[in-house]
Amino acid sequence: MHQRQGTRYAQVFAAVSMPMSELIKVRDELRAFAAERDWDQFHSPKNLASALAVEAAELLEPFQWLTEDQSRNLTEKQLAAVKNELADVQIYLIRLADKLDVDLLQAVRDKIVSNAEKYPVNEFKGSARKYSET
Amino acid sequence: MHQRQGTRYAQVFAAVSMPMSELIKVRDELRAFAAERDWDQFHSPKNLASALAVEAAELLEPFQWLTEDQSRNLTEKQLAAVKNELADVQIYLIRLADKLDVDLLQAVRDKIVSNAEKYPVNEFKGSARKYSET
Amino acid sequence: MHQRQGTRYAQVFAAVSMPMSELIKVRDELRAFAAERDWDQFHSPKNLASALAVEAAELLEPFQWLTEDQSRNLTEKQLAAVKNELADVQIYLIRLADKLDVDLLQAVRDKIVSNAEKYPVNEFKGSARKYSET
Amino acid sequence: MHQRQGTRYAQVFAAVSMPMSELIKVRDELRAFAAERDWDQFHSPKNLASALAVEAAELLEPFQWLTEDQSRNLTEKQLAAVKNELADVQIYLIRLADKLDVDLLQAVRDKIVSNAEKYPVNEFKGSARKYSET
Repeated sequence: MHQRQGTRYAQVFAAVSMPMSELIKVRDELRAFAAERDWDQFHSPKNLASALAVEAAELLEPFQWLTEDQSRNLTEKQLAAVKNELADVQIYLIRLADKLDVDLLQAVRDKIVSNAEKYPVNEFKGSARKYSET
Repeated sequence: MHQRQGTRYAQVFAAVSMPMSELIKVRDELRAFAAERDWDQFHSPKNLASALAVEAAELLEPFQWLTEDQSRNLTEKQLAAVKNELADVQIYLIRLADKLDVDLLQAVRDKIVSNAEKYPVNEFKGSARKYSET
Repeated sequence: MHQRQGTRYAQVFAAVSMPMSELIKVRDELRAFAAERDWDQFHSPKNLASALAVEAAELLEPFQWLTEDQSRNLTEKQLAAVKNELADVQIYLIRLADKLDVDLLQAVRDKIVSNAEKYPVNEFKGSARKYSET
Repeated sequence: MHQRQGTRYAQVFAAVSMPMSELIKVRDELRAFAAERDWDQFHSPKNLASALAVEAAELLEPFQWLTEDQSRNLTEKQLAAVKNELADVQIYLIRLADKLDVDLLQAVRDKIVSNAEKYPVNEFKGSARKYSET
């Protein structure tokens, strides 16, 4: 039955495959951006993974002293800063996936399918088990 | 002139806007996934930002002792692990953007336009200045 | 007046300097540990800084879905895991400082003195200003 | 035999226990610093763990685009920045351990003993096994 949940997600995703992916489009822009500046020499997967971790921490920074409720109600200034960091994380993520020749969207689809099998609704609904175990 | 570079990117992106975004599609799947399991109670922006930083570090982990060259030539086993972590980062990024009501792809486009203005090719081509300053 | 606060801390610290520092002792043990295993080849500052960030994220992981109150009341199992990660962060921090020839304890003292000048009690007492600005 | 290595470390550490620890001294200064400013309300273990991860990433940032060799030869300006971040990580680490009532130095000693048993010299000397497996 868990298999079937996974299958359902796989089918949904198959149905939305598109001729020209927007992530592929951004990937190509980022490739051109780096190439024009001769920055590929800095963009080893090791370095990009570091840069991604740094940006993810910068995204965490505005939230570190907020309560959970406050984090749901950011000021406009806070939100603008956060938006900027969200973009940085996404950009490095696309660059890193590109350098590793990974189809990022396909990796996400595979992971959702696998999560659907790992956390079946009937066992995990309303349960904090996944969260209390981590 | 930098303005013009930014403008060029803005136009390119405008040209590829699509009726149904693949990221929106994944966002909706992730919404349903969390809702079915009643997990939204855990998904405050503060918590999601933490989870994202944790996953970004897990993505960094396989690279931490590798040389840059080794990071360009992962074994299949290493790559499979990395692919899994790339997906986790992307998933939490989409969830966090969703909870903050941020259009992730638009934020990326805005950032690329702004980067194009900040790092004009003629000044930064072949220069490590950006990188040596950080 | 802020100067005086800083000075007070500087004096307190000077008073507790000891002939044989415990952190120096641990540093020497870690040096011997790496040397015996020929691991210094992996311990470039760049790699150690990555390892430290990875361990700091592993330390964050058990807290990511907890409420602040829950984080103040860990189970014994949670605490044991956290203790382990606290140690890992401290170990890599000592190793990194050693490789950079930095006196970690002196750096801490300098930072506390500088923080005392930056956040004078009369301006920051009971105020979340520092925290709401980040 | 691995046991004996662990035991050796345990004995070495026992021999250097001191009546007044320098880390305890710093811990007490940090306690007073927070209390004077009424900042304990922000310093839940969850928040401190986030702050620590953020600072660890700030420590990684100056290294992210450097080669390993460059990371061994920082400029004075780079080193000053790094020293500052090393201190921040150490400060939050001491605060977090304090809030969790963990003896940080003892946790480090326990971990070194356990690492000595886990990575016996005769099996790991000159081998990158630990590192290639991660």
